[in-house]
Amino acid sequence: MHRLLYKDLVARALAEDLGFGDVTTGSIFGPEEGEAVIVAKGKGVLAGLMVAEEVFAQIDGQIKFLNFFQDGEMVNPGDRVAGLKGPVSGILMGERVALNFLQRMSGIATATREAVESISHTGAKITDTRKTSPGLRILEKYAVRIGGGVNHRFNLADMVLIKDNHIKGAGSISEAVARVRQNCGFPVKIEVEAATLEHVREALVCGVDIIMLDNMTTDQMAEAVKLVAGKVQVEASGGITKERLAEVASTGVDLISLGYLTTAGHALDLSLQLY
Amino acid sequence: MHRLLYKDLVARALAEDLGFGDVTTGSIFGPEEGEAVIVAKGKGVLAGLMVAEEVFAQIDGQIKFLNFFQDGEMVNPGDRVAGLKGPVSGILMGERVALNFLQRMSGIATATREAVESISHTGAKITDTRKTSPGLRILEKYAVRIGGGVNHRFNLADMVLIKDNHIKGAGSISEAVARVRQNCGFPVKIEVEAATLEHVREALVCGVDIIMLDNMTTDQMAEAVKLVAGKVQVEASGGITKERLAEVASTGVDLISLGYLTTAGHALDLSLQLY
Amino acid sequence: MHRLLYKDLVARALAEDLGFGDVTTGSIFGPEEGEAVIVAKGKGVLAGLMVAEEVFAQIDGQIKFLNFFQDGEMVNPGDRVAGLKGPVSGILMGERVALNFLQRMSGIATATREAVESISHTGAKITDTRKTSPGLRILEKYAVRIGGGVNHRFNLADMVLIKDNHIKGAGSISEAVARVRQNCGFPVKIEVEAATLEHVREALVCGVDIIMLDNMTTDQMAEAVKLVAGKVQVEASGGITKERLAEVASTGVDLISLGYLTTAGHALDLSLQLY
Amino acid sequence: MHRLLYKDLVARALAEDLGFGDVTTGSIFGPEEGEAVIVAKGKGVLAGLMVAEEVFAQIDGQIKFLNFFQDGEMVNPGDRVAGLKGPVSGILMGERVALNFLQRMSGIATATREAVESISHTGAKITDTRKTSPGLRILEKYAVRIGGGVNHRFNLADMVLIKDNHIKGAGSISEAVARVRQNCGFPVKIEVEAATLEHVREALVCGVDIIMLDNMTTDQMAEAVKLVAGKVQVEASGGITKERLAEVASTGVDLISLGYLTTAGHALDLSLQLY
Amino acid sequence: MHRLLYKDLVARALAEDLGFGDVTTGSIFGPEEGEAVIVAKGKGVLAGLMVAEEVFAQIDGQIKFLNFFQDGEMVNPGDRVAGLKGPVSGILMGERVALNFLQRMSGIATATREAVESISHTGAKITDTRKTSPGLRILEKYAVRIGGGVNHRFNLADMVLIKDNHIKGAGSISEAVARVRQNCGFPVKIEVEAATLEHVREALVCGVDIIMLDNMTTDQMAEAVKLVAGKVQVEASGGITKERLAEVASTGVDLISLGYLTTAGHALDLSLQLY
Amino acid sequence: MHRLLYKDLVARALAEDLGFGDVTTGSIFGPEEGEAVIVAKGKGVLAGLMVAEEVFAQIDGQIKFLNFFQDGEMVNPGDRVAGLKGPVSGILMGERVALNFLQRMSGIATATREAVESISHTGAKITDTRKTSPGLRILEKYAVRIGGGVNHRFNLADMVLIKDNHIKGAGSISEAVARVRQNCGFPVKIEVEAATLEHVREALVCGVDIIMLDNMTTDQMAEAVKLVAGKVQVEASGGITKERLAEVASTGVDLISLGYLTTAGHALDLSLQLY
Repeated sequence: MHRLLYKDLVARALAEDLGFGDVTTGSIFGPEEGEAVIVAKGKGVLAGLMVAEEVFAQIDGQIKFLNFFQDGEMVNPGDRVAGLKGPVSGILMGERVALNFLQRMSGIATATREAVESISHTGAKITDTRKTSPGLRILEKYAVRIGGGVNHRFNLADMVLIKDNHIKGAGSISEAVARVRQNCGFPVKIEVEAATLEHVREALVCGVDIIMLDNMTTDQMAEAVKLVAGKVQVEASGGITKERLAEVASTGVDLISLGYLTTAGHALDLSLQLY
Repeated sequence: MHRLLYKDLVARALAEDLGFGDVTTGSIFGPEEGEAVIVAKGKGVLAGLMVAEEVFAQIDGQIKFLNFFQDGEMVNPGDRVAGLKGPVSGILMGERVALNFLQRMSGIATATREAVESISHTGAKITDTRKTSPGLRILEKYAVRIGGGVNHRFNLADMVLIKDNHIKGAGSISEAVARVRQNCGFPVKIEVEAATLEHVREALVCGVDIIMLDNMTTDQMAEAVKLVAGKVQVEASGGITKERLAEVASTGVDLISLGYLTTAGHALDLSLQLY
Repeated sequence: MHRLLYKDLVARALAEDLGFGDVTTGSIFGPEEGEAVIVAKGKGVLAGLMVAEEVFAQIDGQIKFLNFFQDGEMVNPGDRVAGLKGPVSGILMGERVALNFLQRMSGIATATREAVESISHTGAKITDTRKTSPGLRILEKYAVRIGGGVNHRFNLADMVLIKDNHIKGAGSISEAVARVRQNCGFPVKIEVEAATLEHVREALVCGVDIIMLDNMTTDQMAEAVKLVAGKVQVEASGGITKERLAEVASTGVDLISLGYLTTAGHALDLSLQLY
Repeated sequence: MHRLLYKDLVARALAEDLGFGDVTTGSIFGPEEGEAVIVAKGKGVLAGLMVAEEVFAQIDGQIKFLNFFQDGEMVNPGDRVAGLKGPVSGILMGERVALNFLQRMSGIATATREAVESISHTGAKITDTRKTSPGLRILEKYAVRIGGGVNHRFNLADMVLIKDNHIKGAGSISEAVARVRQNCGFPVKIEVEAATLEHVREALVCGVDIIMLDNMTTDQMAEAVKLVAGKVQVEASGGITKERLAEVASTGVDLISLGYLTTAGHALDLSLQLY
Repeated sequence: MHRLLYKDLVARALAEDLGFGDVTTGSIFGPEEGEAVIVAKGKGVLAGLMVAEEVFAQIDGQIKFLNFFQDGEMVNPGDRVAGLKGPVSGILMGERVALNFLQRMSGIATATREAVESISHTGAKITDTRKTSPGLRILEKYAVRIGGGVNHRFNLADMVLIKDNHIKGAGSISEAVARVRQNCGFPVKIEVEAATLEHVREALVCGVDIIMLDNMTTDQMAEAVKLVAGKVQVEASGGITKERLAEVASTGVDLISLGYLTTAGHALDLSLQLY
Repeated sequence: MHRLLYKDLVARALAEDLGFGDVTTGSIFGPEEGEAVIVAKGKGVLAGLMVAEEVFAQIDGQIKFLNFFQDGEMVNPGDRVAGLKGPVSGILMGERVALNFLQRMSGIATATREAVESISHTGAKITDTRKTSPGLRILEKYAVRIGGGVNHRFNLADMVLIKDNHIKGAGSISEAVARVRQNCGFPVKIEVEAATLEHVREALVCGVDIIMLDNMTTDQMAEAVKLVAGKVQVEASGGITKERLAEVASTGVDLISLGYLTTAGHALDLSLQLY
């Protein structure tokens, strides 16, 4: 991910954490240099090392940041994730902000990896939702990719998603699709939420790109997949838990979207140690 | 919490979610008005209603937002949390962003409330950490208050916290405290991290305001509390889990800081329904 | 288009034009109210009335702005486009900025309308490019829609467009498509630039969504269309002039992208008159 | 022009074009380096090379940008305008934004140069207006200077320009000038719009610095120039076309302002080629 | 002064003063309403009432702000300057920020008024410098106007001021003026700093608009004024104290610039009282 | 003070001063290099050298800035404070902004140093207030520290200060303290304003951290100090002048807050000289 995409987020996070200055560190340390490591205290998939590096770069250009692992690699408790060298005061000032980014992103990557692996015997893919932390979506979606998921749309503009309220508003799926086609650019795919097999049939006739099976039972999903017969992509959605994942994947859906990846992911436990 | 403190966060979250516009809603709806409710699908403590309200206010001044519950109240599945009335397109455009704020904040309030209740038979208080979502700290700390916790420092400036690395850097707790006193304003309290009873003793001599017992066993904590004998506040810290909370509280510490409130809180499940 | 999408652009434009204040108007006018009209001095398609309205709203909430025409309507010299009522000083302060937006956007809509009409006997659609004024893309793409065009991608993220340099970099179209598929979300369409019929064939095999015929002769385009046979969309691109439009459209391509819509469009001549 | 004046414009343009990242380039290219040239495909006067350079500098500090021409020089089709060396992915990511700035600015410089040359046998100078692209005025006015024009005021504050509406508001030119003198700093020049010779006479009496002849016939202008007799500067203004330029210049006016320089300028055709 | 010119300054000042919220006021007050007055505790000229009003408007739209005096009027200890009515919490939150603006601006207006009055028997005018508080220049220059001064240039762009270093750089005044004329727009006046009568003579020959007599003795100034003989404006500059003002003015200079207006002005003492 | 805390202030100040560019310097100087010194013309305590350095760094990375003195050192007229080396144009462009910061900050440090020295025979400390220049508080509070003062609170959040209006609102000091304790984090100290000895007694009972003696006579202060007997810190406040400082300090108060440090401080006279 290009640095232009996260440097302002980092600047904002640093401003938030610095307040009017780090009194503690600023009083105790002068320009002395030191070394530190970021160490894993839990097991999980790393994501966001470049963001952590950016944190220290913004604080002090003299701090060197050295990856010992790469984003996407699994770490275990005790693993040294990255090394830091430079003015101690800068390292301590950036510690919390760097870890806050890295722990959350790694937590999401880890949850995604688990989900991906639990359905790896099927052809289904794990995807995310827009249920992300306000302001951090770009980082959280990156973490999903690092965990092996594929990204759903990033915002309200980059794909049309016709939900039940839109269908009600337009009167029918066909009418909703027709109205949308009038306005949206040709690069924009159209996905329709289907609550019933009837909806699936109508959506197929309209020639949409993806059909989302919303809150269906596993049996309904299986039928819907048969109905679609590979003509368009099929996404399973709606409160799907870890426990139900394999069952859903076995219906033959192409995509399973999981809100919990970004709403419930436990942060990966990491700490920074000076030595 | 004053609107000036979160209106820019809301604006940024809306910009993130809108991209270059909501093609779906914009194509299907004109100026027609409608009503909607935010409904609880899980059980928990509400926090952040004014932020959700601000989301819709920024989208369209005509949308009315009516609280049926207040921040701090417990909701159960099926409860109608708030009502909305106004242009349907605006309601749909704001849905996801409003829920993202409200669900995360309520999740944190809920986790805090549980922790607070589990130690309500003791005099200890639950407090938070700086392990918050980058950019959202002010909202997450508010949610902790709503859940019944008290806030720890907001940033590196509003309290001195002398940690192990600072002690090492200065040579001793006394030297660290002395250096900090030289620089910090009189409104700033000083807290010192103590890993041993020896540290506790030295910190007491220095006249600090709070002593943090870092990663101590329950027995050590009890001894430390005895040693301090009410002269200063005592905070228990370091990977304290839900399970261990009551035990820790029973040692007589004044404060227990819990990182998991903001790093692992499950979002409260809420949905917005048009009708 | 939602006001959230252009209000910052308007604020920035006003700041640019105000400098440290409108000395002339501020010295001559007090709170006296007046009326004004925006009058067409040329012929063209209006676009951007809501942006002009926003200019005056930001200057003074008391200024009323009344559309006499709607975006997308054709105006002729002498037509009164919109009326203004309120403090004269505010009207004069906003005049130039409002007209700068409205004239440029209307110019683009006009050029688009002309292009659309010149090929209305075919099934081809006019689309735009990323050759827009830095910072104003969202408004210029809106103007293209108002003129009857369909929007191409808004930025580097909302569609994949594999160009000659990418093909060279990857080694082949197939390899480029494969690499991209690995990374991009399922909502993202893939378009490939084809300079030869060979390219077209390879792109078809890869299952891309759109094929761009880059700088082909009319005959080559016709052949390419035949080859594609409706399986995917075909876009004609590359320095297509007004004069050549009809000819290109007659080849059966689905889309014709025109850089000149946004790089060469003459602003529609409009003036604001107080009375 | 100092980099501080355009670096934020460049950052904003890059953010606009990047969206949430360049999927195509990011998927296909790793860190491999390459070379590219910006080549002229049309004939015109270059302006904005330092802005193009800034685009690439913001993307990747490793990209070298080498001017083969300087701003103000004429290029012909096939001329290599500038060379680039560095990571291919960065070069491709910046291509469109860099060209958008450079083409528009060069287009304006070219149109200005043509106008300047067409009246080079007279003493008149070409100047610009405030009819610029919202947000880009500083760059477009720079391009006018590069083309040989002189800049008119940049905003409403840096010169007083008393127009017909102000005269009506104040009651007379003298009264308008008097009111303005009361308020404006001594560094601020005063220009008055004159629609008739009567106005010219009144303005002369008031001791203004510049008189603008607004929408006068060539004969009226000649008379006005005679009347002024070199006491103050005289500007011809109001829908002056290329065709009429020489005639207007021959009346002896000092300045001719041309809105079309910035509202109708065809972008100079340039392309970036990797090799 | 238009609200667009200071609303961001006010927002920034409020953010600075609020930190993460007004704990004191927020804990003690609910929605109860009250009234307050801003009372003068010193004697001076008011400036900045609209800025104070904007402070409260941004905090709470329900707070009414009523001027009892106008900018430019003299107040005496005990005078009620303005009244406030609305939620007490909002009034208290805005108190300090509103007074900080109002006191500083009024202090500058007061100092200016004193200077203006001390030379009112001459034709000289008091003007300011660029020695203003970083970020607040527009407000401080406004205060100078309110005090009866005229503004010098606002920034490095709106007038050319050729100082000794520029003259040295160019080789001579004539060369410096020539180079500047090449580049600057016709709306831009040219002022030259003259340290000797020789400089004054050279500047006159070059046809500059204003000559600044820099650090001259009173006698030298008188001679310079004679030499200029009303052909251009003459500004006295350089460490002129209150005590020397009348003497300098009596030399016949047109303008006297005083750095101390904005660098040493005592804030007017004001307080806000609830009742 | 960390650069992250002032770099945006510097950027804003430069934008304010540059307008659309330094016409004078830009026309006269090319890339030629030179040297300059910042020289003291008055006597005082330096503060803000790193801010001045940042000004030039933002203008041109090639400009070297060399401190000859450090913040906190006393300079006398003629002392060379700092040296500059690099492109002359950049040095001249930054001159005014750098001096504006440095002179104001040094003026505050000087006033603070004087106050500190005048009471150095007592145990009292000098502290500041929130009466700072809007937007510049962080720099002005830094200057107070450099002058030997200790900082009072930075904003409304980092300490509770219960003033007369809050006491009235709550009904009593005890009630006000109780309400505040409910809401504020444990890191936040509580200070109460006491107008009478009765207030002092009540505040002591409530266990506040600091008691502010507001506008008391010297005798009242002495009595209050006796009453408090070292149990909490005591601050003298309210229009204390230089003349009264020693007397107030001799009462045994711990802190004396002085609004005039930041509202009336004469800027230290400094100039930049090229050679």
